[in-house]
Amino acid sequence: MTDSATTTRPPLSERVLQGDPRAIARAISLIEDEAAEGAELVRRIFPRTGGAYLVGVTGAPGAGKSTLVDRLITELRARGRSVGVVAVDPTSPFSGGAILGDRVRMQAHFADADVFIRSMATRGHLGGLARATGEAALVLDAAGKDIVIIETVGVGQDEIDIIRTADISIVTLVPGTGDEVQALKAGIMEIADIFVVNKADREGADRTVASVEALLSLETFAGGRWRPPIVKTEATTGKGTKELVDALERFRVHMAPVQGERRRARAEWRVRELLADRFVQHVSDHVLAAGEFDRLLDRIAARETDPYTVVDGILRRSIQLHQGPDA
Amino acid sequence: MTDSATTTRPPLSERVLQGDPRAIARAISLIEDEAAEGAELVRRIFPRTGGAYLVGVTGAPGAGKSTLVDRLITELRARGRSVGVVAVDPTSPFSGGAILGDRVRMQAHFADADVFIRSMATRGHLGGLARATGEAALVLDAAGKDIVIIETVGVGQDEIDIIRTADISIVTLVPGTGDEVQALKAGIMEIADIFVVNKADREGADRTVASVEALLSLETFAGGRWRPPIVKTEATTGKGTKELVDALERFRVHMAPVQGERRRARAEWRVRELLADRFVQHVSDHVLAAGEFDRLLDRIAARETDPYTVVDGILRRSIQLHQGPDA
Repeated sequence: MTDSATTTRPPLSERVLQGDPRAIARAISLIEDEAAEGAELVRRIFPRTGGAYLVGVTGAPGAGKSTLVDRLITELRARGRSVGVVAVDPTSPFSGGAILGDRVRMQAHFADADVFIRSMATRGHLGGLARATGEAALVLDAAGKDIVIIETVGVGQDEIDIIRTADISIVTLVPGTGDEVQALKAGIMEIADIFVVNKADREGADRTVASVEALLSLETFAGGRWRPPIVKTEATTGKGTKELVDALERFRVHMAPVQGERRRARAEWRVRELLADRFVQHVSDHVLAAGEFDRLLDRIAARETDPYTVVDGILRRSIQLHQGPDA
Repeated sequence: MTDSATTTRPPLSERVLQGDPRAIARAISLIEDEAAEGAELVRRIFPRTGGAYLVGVTGAPGAGKSTLVDRLITELRARGRSVGVVAVDPTSPFSGGAILGDRVRMQAHFADADVFIRSMATRGHLGGLARATGEAALVLDAAGKDIVIIETVGVGQDEIDIIRTADISIVTLVPGTGDEVQALKAGIMEIADIFVVNKADREGADRTVASVEALLSLETFAGGRWRPPIVKTEATTGKGTKELVDALERFRVHMAPVQGERRRARAEWRVRELLADRFVQHVSDHVLAAGEFDRLLDRIAARETDPYTVVDGILRRSIQLHQGPDA
């Protein structure tokens, strides 16, 4: 509790592995801040990850994902599973909604030590959010959560990548707007392992189900290939949640023999992301002189050079940086 | 027309600069395919870009962006501007909608040589779509289009980056779903230079306007800072399109003194993207042995190592690649 006590505490990674909620929160903050300690922490906990089952939940804004995830937590807890949630909450700085949202949502599971919910806000930084989300999921995994839910607005490419590499992807649709087919087409059709038609009490729910069925009927699901079921839910009342978790469990069993492939894809995505990020950082720290990047951008803006030529030049220098003195 | 005629044609970059629609189409395809010729083409045309005014149009799926953009084209053409459109259309491979959509949309402006519309479909490749979109806009710019509209589902980080670095960002909202505040919060609030409330004949349009007003009232717009106007449109009838283009023109005049900053941000984003991409490509072509990346991924999947350690190793070897034999 006091500062002097801090020094005798076990290191953060140990406390994360013990499932200490404050350590988990601190670890995710380090990751969000892109602190060097964050990277070191991920390295330390990584060997102890892989135990959690990663559930991706996506859908357009307003599809009721948050309420649905809350219902999922309750049902999973009833089945004895501990749950971690990483909500990618691209909330505007205007409203400060991410923090408020966390507070509201945590209250429902406040007394439950086996539930941990965390929102991650968007950063300006290229690819930063997607990587931070994946690493936050690793923290919850290492902390011993049985199920880690990643909830995101799944329309952007990065967000689709996050969801695609989860162990299961749940795509949430909402009827009654007349826009469900649009949402379906928004690049998330092919990543769905389960479709949820949420707010199923709304007019048009059956039409939405029929639209999805029609699209699925264009595909063949031969040779034991999983056919995504369509589950109708009313997240506000909890109706359909049990059926959704049942579908999730069926998928898990069905896919157990090939789960490794998906996890490998996740590892590949993570390594590529990290490699790109670290290289750009290296260039900025060690290759370019102070102010040089700005001057290059000025020259591009003035059309005196072009991005390809600039990048070729930087790349050539970066790769030869440690060469002999006669380089 | 015939194969033999091809050899005597001017190079593709020349034909793009002359505004030849087939050359533009071919150039964008090369970029989409990430062909080396695509990069070379961008390099050649780049000095001749910068003339077009880039208009980003974003909003959730189903907000009616495509119809709105069609109306924008008509109004801009009436004002004597030539128009290019790059529509980021993350359509599922299930429906093949991108191509179909192009055909339908092109028909309205079929006879008009000063309009060019092109959809770009999502790729699995990290960051690939965002970069391809930016480069397609460069092609249309070089081809002499006065206005280049980039239309995208603006919820993902990459997509937000694309729109953010356009000369102007138009955020499209749709009333009547009760979800407008959700959409507002989806990270696109702070990038809007103009808000469009589309489908303004729907119930709830005034409430949507009031929501945006309420959020804007939390901000100060002192010292000549642009306050995003809210324009109500009915894209299906064309109502409000004139007011929207008027607002766009006002913004353009207002921002003229600082337009350079935005274009610089665009250049920076492009260089970082490209640098990351090219480095990952270099590693895969020249640093890693055949099959080595796969083996590393296997070891990560088996928790024998972690992504940070792998990336550190690759990075160290990449940077020292051309070092002396005693390395």
